[in-house]
Amino acid sequence: MSTLCRALLKNKNRCQVLFYRPILTIQTSDIPSKLQSHRKFSNNSVRNSTNLTFSNDAFKRRDEFSSTICVLACGIGGAIAFYLYKDKETVLALKAIENAELPQYHKSVRKDLPTYSMAEVGTHASSEKGIWVTYGIGVYDITKFVPQHPGSDKIMIGAGSSIDPFWHIYQQHNTPEILNLLETFRIGNLKAEDDFGTKDLSDPWSNEPKRHPLLKPASLKPFNAEPPPTLLVEHFITPNDFFYVRNHLPVPEIDADSYELEIGVEDTDKVKTMTLKDIQSLPKHHVTAAIMCGGNRRSEMTNVKPVKGLSWGPAAVGNAQWSGARLCDILKEMGIESDEKRHVHFEGFDMDPTSTHYAASIPLSKAMDERGDVILAYEMNGEPLPRDHGFPVRVICPGIVGARNVKWLGRITISNVESDSHWQQNDYKGFSPSTDWDTVDFSKSPAIQNMPVTSAICNPESNTSVSINKNGCINVKGYAWSGGGNKIVRVDLTADGGKSWHVAKLIHDTDANGDQSNLNGRNWAWALWTAEIPVPKGTKHVEVWSKAVDSNYNVQPESFENTWNLRGVLSNAYSRIKVNIE
Amino acid sequence: MSTLCRALLKNKNRCQVLFYRPILTIQTSDIPSKLQSHRKFSNNSVRNSTNLTFSNDAFKRRDEFSSTICVLACGIGGAIAFYLYKDKETVLALKAIENAELPQYHKSVRKDLPTYSMAEVGTHASSEKGIWVTYGIGVYDITKFVPQHPGSDKIMIGAGSSIDPFWHIYQQHNTPEILNLLETFRIGNLKAEDDFGTKDLSDPWSNEPKRHPLLKPASLKPFNAEPPPTLLVEHFITPNDFFYVRNHLPVPEIDADSYELEIGVEDTDKVKTMTLKDIQSLPKHHVTAAIMCGGNRRSEMTNVKPVKGLSWGPAAVGNAQWSGARLCDILKEMGIESDEKRHVHFEGFDMDPTSTHYAASIPLSKAMDERGDVILAYEMNGEPLPRDHGFPVRVICPGIVGARNVKWLGRITISNVESDSHWQQNDYKGFSPSTDWDTVDFSKSPAIQNMPVTSAICNPESNTSVSINKNGCINVKGYAWSGGGNKIVRVDLTADGGKSWHVAKLIHDTDANGDQSNLNGRNWAWALWTAEIPVPKGTKHVEVWSKAVDSNYNVQPESFENTWNLRGVLSNAYSRIKVNIE
Repeated sequence: MSTLCRALLKNKNRCQVLFYRPILTIQTSDIPSKLQSHRKFSNNSVRNSTNLTFSNDAFKRRDEFSSTICVLACGIGGAIAFYLYKDKETVLALKAIENAELPQYHKSVRKDLPTYSMAEVGTHASSEKGIWVTYGIGVYDITKFVPQHPGSDKIMIGAGSSIDPFWHIYQQHNTPEILNLLETFRIGNLKAEDDFGTKDLSDPWSNEPKRHPLLKPASLKPFNAEPPPTLLVEHFITPNDFFYVRNHLPVPEIDADSYELEIGVEDTDKVKTMTLKDIQSLPKHHVTAAIMCGGNRRSEMTNVKPVKGLSWGPAAVGNAQWSGARLCDILKEMGIESDEKRHVHFEGFDMDPTSTHYAASIPLSKAMDERGDVILAYEMNGEPLPRDHGFPVRVICPGIVGARNVKWLGRITISNVESDSHWQQNDYKGFSPSTDWDTVDFSKSPAIQNMPVTSAICNPESNTSVSINKNGCINVKGYAWSGGGNKIVRVDLTADGGKSWHVAKLIHDTDANGDQSNLNGRNWAWALWTAEIPVPKGTKHVEVWSKAVDSNYNVQPESFENTWNLRGVLSNAYSRIKVNIE
Repeated sequence: MSTLCRALLKNKNRCQVLFYRPILTIQTSDIPSKLQSHRKFSNNSVRNSTNLTFSNDAFKRRDEFSSTICVLACGIGGAIAFYLYKDKETVLALKAIENAELPQYHKSVRKDLPTYSMAEVGTHASSEKGIWVTYGIGVYDITKFVPQHPGSDKIMIGAGSSIDPFWHIYQQHNTPEILNLLETFRIGNLKAEDDFGTKDLSDPWSNEPKRHPLLKPASLKPFNAEPPPTLLVEHFITPNDFFYVRNHLPVPEIDADSYELEIGVEDTDKVKTMTLKDIQSLPKHHVTAAIMCGGNRRSEMTNVKPVKGLSWGPAAVGNAQWSGARLCDILKEMGIESDEKRHVHFEGFDMDPTSTHYAASIPLSKAMDERGDVILAYEMNGEPLPRDHGFPVRVICPGIVGARNVKWLGRITISNVESDSHWQQNDYKGFSPSTDWDTVDFSKSPAIQNMPVTSAICNPESNTSVSINKNGCINVKGYAWSGGGNKIVRVDLTADGGKSWHVAKLIHDTDANGDQSNLNGRNWAWALWTAEIPVPKGTKHVEVWSKAVDSNYNVQPESFENTWNLRGVLSNAYSRIKVNIE
C-alpha cells in the first residue's frame, strides 16, 4: 500500500480516497504534466484536507437531525426545513439501472490468453512500450484506443495499472457497449494474487444525500437528475428539492464549523483563508439567477445522431435566489485588480481517486466586475445550501454555464491561465457538426462560459394529449433564458410550421425587467412564459415550436442538424413538441 | 414668413432650415408632446446653434483645401489626406435615380375638386376636424392614413400644413407607390397664391461631402451607401473612404473651431460645455470596433417578403480604429454615477425641417463602464473624422447597432428615460414574423442595442463564376461579427446543404484575440475569415452557406423565414451564395 493511501486511511474516519492501487507503477513521464500535481500558491499553503472529513458519529447525527445542525452550523435563524423523503421511487429507479445485465468479461479467465503479473503490466505505461491496463482480472492493451478516449488524456493515469477504482467513480463506463469494446483489447489475464481491482474497494457513493423522488436520474453515480418539466415551470423560483442536480463526483461531506476556503494568487505569497463565518460576515448579496447544465436538452440533439453525455431532458436548469458574499469585494480587499487576460480558478472539495478535485475557471474580469454579480453563495432560496448544491459554499457565476458554478468550494486561485482541469479543457466546449472523436482538438474551441439563448416547451410534454380551451386554443407553458445577463425579450410560438407566430406572455423577475428599455446586461434570471395557440377545429395532432429572442436579438437556431456537436452541449435549437388533440 | 424663418435667414449665410412654412397653423394640441420641444437641461442652456454655421467663403476654402483646414482646425499633426474624387460614377448613379419618372399629380390642378386656401387647410389639423395636408398644389385628407404611417406620429407635424419641406428631407417618400397612394387621398387644389411648397426651397442637400465612386448608394438623400463586398473583406481595417455611410438627414457643416458639445443631466443644473480642444486634451483612447447598420443584409430578408427600409447588401458594416476621449472619464468628472435604470441621450447636429435633431440613447451603465469602451471619437483610422462619419465628434458605442453611434455629436443628456426620438422609439426594433404594419406596437419591443451574431460571404459574390484551386476547392472569404463585445470563435461553411461543414480560418484583431481562453467581453472588432471548400469534380453550380458562432456560443438562425420582421432589421440568417464553377 502506498504511503499516500496509508496516510489517508490513518487520518480520516471517512475518506473518499480508499483505493488500493499500485501508484508506483505509473510512469510519470507519460502523464501529462498538468495532471501531475495541483497548482499551489506557495509551499506554505498546501491544502490541508482534514477539514473535509466528518466522523461517523457526526455524520449519523447530521443525517438524523440535519435541520438543527445546519441552522447551528451556519448561524442562520428562521424556519429552515430539510426534508427527508422516503424515496422509494428513486431507490427502485436505482435498482433498475444497477441490475441491467452487463457483460462480466472482466471476472472471467480467458483460457486462450496468457497470464501477466501487475508488475509486468506496470512496465507498459508509455506509447513506446504500449499502454496496458487491468480491469478485474482482464489485461488490456489500449494503446490504439488512447487517442480516441472521450475523457482525453485522463486515461493515462491508469496506464500500467488497474482502472477499477476509476470506473467505480466514473460509472458511465459501465455500459454494454464500452465493456464489449474493452474486451476487444484484451490480451491476457491478471495473476490471481494481483487482483486488487474487484475487491477491497470502499464505496465512495455510500453517503450521498437523500433526493426528492420526483427527480428523474440521468445517472446515479455520480448523481445527475432533473425534475419533471411540467413541474419545473410551475415556480418562478425553483424549490431547492426540485432543482436539477449535476454532480461530477461523489458529494463530499464537509463540516461547516471547520470549513475553510483558501484564496490565493498563483506564484505569489498572497493567500487568505476564510471560514464560513468569515464569508458570512461580509455584506450579503442576493442574486436571482438561473443555472443551466451545458448539456441541458441534450436528448433532443441525440435524435440527429448519438452524442457522448448524459441524456438530459429540458429540465437541467433551475432558477433560484442565491445569497452570499460578493467575490469582487474579497478580491479587492486582497489588493487584486481586474486584468483582462487573467482567470479565476475554482476548486471543489469533490475529488476523484487520484485526488484530482473538480475545478473550473472564469475570466477574472467577470469576477472583478461588480455588475458581474459573482458571489460565494451559502444560501439557496433562503436556506443553507443543500449538500447536492454545494454545502456549505459554492460560487455563483450568473449567466455562465453550470459547470463553472463550482460547488463545495475549497480553493480560489488567480492565475494567468485558465484552469487546466479536464472539465475546462477537454469537456464543455462546442464544435462544428463535422467534428468527430477522430478529428476533435479540444484546444481549438473556447470553454463554454456564457450560455446561448434558449427556450423549452415544458407543458404539455411531447406525445401527450391536450384539450382545446374555450378560445379554441391550446395552452402552452415553458421557460426561456439567455446567458451573459441578456434578457429574454420575446418568445414566439407556432403550431403551423412557422406560417403564423404567436407571441408568448413573459413572466420576468421583477417589474424592472418588464421595462423594455432596461437592458442593463444583468438579467440573470430566466423568464417563464405562457401562450395560447389557436388550433383549427378538427385537428387531431399538432406540432408546436418555441423560439426565444434575447436583448441582443440573438435567436435560437431552428434545428439540431446544423448545431450538432459530439458532446451534445449547447443544445438550444427550437423546442418542438407533438401532441394529440382530445 | 415666420419670425423663426426670418431670424434664421438673417443670421446664417448657410442654413439647414430654409423652409417657408405656415408654422402657426399647426394645432399644438395634436402634436405628440414629445415632438413639441427639445428636452433641455435648464433655461440657461438652450442650445446656441450659431456654431453650426459656416460662411460661404469659409465653405469654399474648406472644400478646396480641406486637408489643410482640417489639420489646422483639429490641431492634429502628421500626414492626413482627404481625397477629392472625380466621382463620375456616383453622379451618374444619382442622376439615374433622380430622373426616374415619378407621377407629378401634385403639380397639376384637379378640375373635379374644389380649391382651398392654406388658412382653410390649417383648420384641419386634428383627428376631430380631419387631418389635411398639402403637397405641391394638391390638398389631401390623410385622416385615415395617419395611424398607418410607417414613420408613426411624426406625420402629425405636417397636419394642416405643407409636407413639401419634409419630403425634401425624407426623400424615401418619392416613389411611384407612395405618390399614387397620396393621390387617393386628394380632396382639392391649393389656391395659387398659397403654393409655398413647390417654390422657394433651398436645397438642404447642396453641400453634401464628396464620396468615393465605389460606394454603391442605397439612397442618395439622405446619402446611404456601401462598398463592394469583395473590396470590404480585403482590409481588416476598413479604409475611411470605403466605410459604409448611413445618414438619416443632410450632413451638417460644423466649424471645428467653434464646435461645442453640451453635456448635462436632465432636470438639474449640471451642465458642461466642451470644445473640440477640451475633448482632445483628455487621455486619448483607441478602440478598434466594427460599426454595423441595423439594416445590414436587409436585401436578403426581402427575398422572403417585402420590408420597409433601405435595400442594404452585406457591406453596411466597417471596422475602424476610433480614437477619442472616454465618455466615462467625462461623466465621472462631472460627478455622475452609474445607475442601472438611467440612459444617456446623444443628439447630433443633423436635423430635419422642424429642427428635430437626430438622436438616440444607450443605457448609462454601458457608458459608465470602463470596459464598455464608449468614446467621443474625433479620429477614424488616425485621421480626423470624415464629414460623412461625424466630423468633428461622434460617439462610438462598441458592440451596439450603428444607429446609436450618433454622428456630429452636439449634446449628451443623462436621463431617467430612453431617448424619445423616432429612431429610438419607432424604428430599429425587432418583431415577430407575424407582426405587420396593422398590428405593430413599437412600445412592445426594446430598441436594438447590442447586435446579434452574423457572418457574410463576401467573395465570391452570388451569381458569379469561380474556379477550382489546385486542392480541388473554391476559396471563400467573408466577415463575421457579434455585438456586445462577444468574440467570433468559429465560422462554419458548407457547400452541400449542411451534410459536411468546414471550419474557416479566422483573422482576429490581435494575437490576444486568437487566444481561445480570452473571453473578456471586449471584442469589438469583427473577424475576417477565409476558407477552402472542396467541390466534387464535374460540379457546375454550388451553393455555399456560412454561419458564425460567438463566444456565448450563440449562432445565426438558418433562414430568414422565421426571423423576418417588417422593418427588415437584424437580418442575420446564414449567408448563402450560389456560384457557377468554371
